[in-house]
Amino acid sequence: MRICCIVQYDGSRFAGFQRQPGLRTIQGTIEAALKKLFSAEVIIHASGRTDAGVHAMAQVFHFDMPFDIPEENIKLALNRMVMPDIYITDVFSVNDEFNARFDAVAKEYRYKIINLKNQPFLPMKNDYYSYVNMDLDHEKILAAIPLFIGEHDFASFASLRRSKHTTTWRTIHRLEYYFDADGNYEFRICGSGFLRYMVRTIVGTLLQVGSGRFTIEDIEDMFAAPDRRKAGKSAEPNGLYLWRVWYDDADDYKNKE
Amino acid sequence: MRICCIVQYDGSRFAGFQRQPGLRTIQGTIEAALKKLFSAEVIIHASGRTDAGVHAMAQVFHFDMPFDIPEENIKLALNRMVMPDIYITDVFSVNDEFNARFDAVAKEYRYKIINLKNQPFLPMKNDYYSYVNMDLDHEKILAAIPLFIGEHDFASFASLRRSKHTTTWRTIHRLEYYFDADGNYEFRICGSGFLRYMVRTIVGTLLQVGSGRFTIEDIEDMFAAPDRRKAGKSAEPNGLYLWRVWYDDADDYKNKE
Repeated sequence: MRICCIVQYDGSRFAGFQRQPGLRTIQGTIEAALKKLFSAEVIIHASGRTDAGVHAMAQVFHFDMPFDIPEENIKLALNRMVMPDIYITDVFSVNDEFNARFDAVAKEYRYKIINLKNQPFLPMKNDYYSYVNMDLDHEKILAAIPLFIGEHDFASFASLRRSKHTTTWRTIHRLEYYFDADGNYEFRICGSGFLRYMVRTIVGTLLQVGSGRFTIEDIEDMFAAPDRRKAGKSAEPNGLYLWRVWYDDADDYKNKE
Repeated sequence: MRICCIVQYDGSRFAGFQRQPGLRTIQGTIEAALKKLFSAEVIIHASGRTDAGVHAMAQVFHFDMPFDIPEENIKLALNRMVMPDIYITDVFSVNDEFNARFDAVAKEYRYKIINLKNQPFLPMKNDYYSYVNMDLDHEKILAAIPLFIGEHDFASFASLRRSKHTTTWRTIHRLEYYFDADGNYEFRICGSGFLRYMVRTIVGTLLQVGSGRFTIEDIEDMFAAPDRRKAGKSAEPNGLYLWRVWYDDADDYKNKE
């Protein structure tokens, strides 16, 4: 029977999602727990990878059970082994065609920032927020956001480490920017899918629009190039959260929460 | 010249404050940075130790400079080496008689709790809050608090691992309990000083008063005994913060913030 799980994790405690020999990873930790539970090798398939330091509020993965165990027992047994850095919130059976990666129709990431111009640094927040130290013009950021919405070639905003044969076209459904007077900022970005470092590079570029380093014309050039060296510096991983993955065509991922 | 520093740290990343060979500790990390800065062994003296997992918003320590460096440069140089898990917020010179441990007249600890009856578990909060899963009668907790205020023998609320020759009498100036309907609770406890595990054992005992495990009479028995086995289970370290240390006799530590 195929099982789908929704999982939260504190990415600061892991060398990323993907299994790597000798490193503590989220996939490796969950697969080790499944191996104990089923006394057999079980491979999990997630909606996508997240990098070291990136958190998840609702990552999704599937796996096939070597033999059937009730869903509620899987949740209890796995959480006993993977908590507290990982916490499985939901376990349910799905049909054998369900694929957590290929059936995902949209994903939302959120990026949380604190400005040192407004708030002092605090060690306890450092893993969960990205600290910046810059004067930001929020109106400039808001003015640049529409350029990212819709279907574009995001090659300028992705890691150079990728296959030449993979398309770099993606669709951004929503890109929202929230800010308050205390220096708390948040980007929410929902799209059909994301290239490696794409969210962090878009956030880093928009911050540099806010700081005056880039103009709207510069962003247009980045899309026109496309050349990774033209875009802004990627923002740090610690403020980034995989927030939600959508699997149906109900289109509600296009709406603000 | 003697230097006094105020320091914040995320205790979840350390095996406690006190230097221990082969372990990452707060004292060891700061002394290693001072050794680099001064090219000489420098010993720091803190207001007290904190255990593994316990955080500090304003721990205080002093040390003697092998040669003089301006305070602001010390702060910059040290933070460059100890951030982000440790952050030194203040550096100032003091007279050569100042002692961060022996001159402390009062300390405040805060203990933050989330009740799983009201909120789901979240990996990102686990290092900074203690999760409990119990129905709590807040009125019972509030009714038991006055028993702890004032000067008492706290032997029943301290680690058994201590010298027989040390007094276990301490004075609690304030003990406040805050709670909301979402299951967020906070204890604030200010006293002349604290025995090892004392804050966590008082919090653990008060939680068990709230759950109905102990009565007011049980608390009276704990003080009368005194016997560590009579008191409640110590609460976990992860919700505990050394919040402030006072060094003057202005008595303002007796007032709520």
